[in-house]
Amino acid sequence: MCGVNPVRETLRAAPTTIRRVWAARGARAAEEIAAAARAAGLPVETTETATLDELSGGAHHQGVVAETAPFAYTAVEDVLARGAPILIALDGINDPQNLGAIMRSAEVLGAGGLLLPRDRAAPVTAAAIRASSGASAHLPVAQVVNLVRALGLAKEQGYWIVALDSGGTSVFTDLPPLERALLIVGGEGGGLRRLVAETADFRVRIPVHGRVESLNVSAAAAIGIHALRERVPPAGGARSRS
Amino acid sequence: MCGVNPVRETLRAAPTTIRRVWAARGARAAEEIAAAARAAGLPVETTETATLDELSGGAHHQGVVAETAPFAYTAVEDVLARGAPILIALDGINDPQNLGAIMRSAEVLGAGGLLLPRDRAAPVTAAAIRASSGASAHLPVAQVVNLVRALGLAKEQGYWIVALDSGGTSVFTDLPPLERALLIVGGEGGGLRRLVAETADFRVRIPVHGRVESLNVSAAAAIGIHALRERVPPAGGARSRS
Repeated sequence: MCGVNPVRETLRAAPTTIRRVWAARGARAAEEIAAAARAAGLPVETTETATLDELSGGAHHQGVVAETAPFAYTAVEDVLARGAPILIALDGINDPQNLGAIMRSAEVLGAGGLLLPRDRAAPVTAAAIRASSGASAHLPVAQVVNLVRALGLAKEQGYWIVALDSGGTSVFTDLPPLERALLIVGGEGGGLRRLVAETADFRVRIPVHGRVESLNVSAAAAIGIHALRERVPPAGGARSRS
Repeated sequence: MCGVNPVRETLRAAPTTIRRVWAARGARAAEEIAAAARAAGLPVETTETATLDELSGGAHHQGVVAETAPFAYTAVEDVLARGAPILIALDGINDPQNLGAIMRSAEVLGAGGLLLPRDRAAPVTAAAIRASSGASAHLPVAQVVNLVRALGLAKEQGYWIVALDSGGTSVFTDLPPLERALLIVGGEGGGLRRLVAETADFRVRIPVHGRVESLNVSAAAAIGIHALRERVPPAGGARSRS
């Protein structure tokens, strides 16, 4: 990772994802970042521009390069075993900005974990971590080889599967109170894959009324998590799956 | 406005905001954009790089420069007179990306107009128009000198004023069915100004449960419009203001 803003923001939001920082000698922004990195207990090396050019592979580093740790995924069984009332699964989100924005909304709104397919979907990259504004440090994320199978495991753990689907016949207020629910959100272009949609217990649409075709997927996910939260009451009276 | 992507996206999403296009002779992406602009009935001039450098004031134009029309605001009285069941007002949103994203969500979710303070808030710039994905062509936006006074006018037109406020004591499901409602959303940093918040009939919070402090303001606005829509039933039985 390189550049003043990306490194500064990651230091602020998710310092544990940074392993080491190199900063250009004598550059003011770089020295401020070096000081912040030292304060966070990270190893910092002050060096020459030529070294930074080499470390960054020629990218526009503005005097700052950081080595980041790969994101630490959680096993799907561990995400499910936590028993959070709400989980979210993304089927084919490709834009790391959208992924990060959804991670932020999920964490703030109290979703207890995120399931991501390993193929044809953005993994949790440095860009997604930055866009999550620190949520990546608190939200357990599982990468799954087979999303349909993971949804089956979730059902066994008592989760109702609710798919956000523009062709759905229900809206959120039609849902009964649910004890535990997992929300699936489809990708930017094609929405949900058929097999994934067919796994759902409920297919719910967000009512749209405009001339612009669709919501941004991160806006749709935020609406979905909040609306589902209203259907998953904190105590008693909800429909159990088992 | 200049650059391949900005001009291409604006041509696609909001062609009526473009008045004229200049394209570099012999550059492939520029010539594709020139063809699209001609197909949209816009005047196009093929020219030399030096002319584009001058037109763009030295910005990175990638062979394409467009002259855009200033955004056409609607008078606040006209926005209110349309009688849309839901309106939205933004108090101090500064980031054009957030403004554009909120315009998109508002249009898709069926808000009938947007009120923006003229001072200390991002106006509808080319960047906001692009981020709105075409919604700017369909959503009436009024710039108001005094937001509190505009909210007073909205009350006279039968609107209940609902403020999204992290210190609010109600949640959306506590609201009675309302005949017409105007949602106010505060800025990225400070939230609502005190006088604006005091104008509201209801102060509603989005329940948060995470360790990250807050939602992105465009996610919060999307949640708010959707949740308010659920409290503004399409027909009968709702609480009238008058």
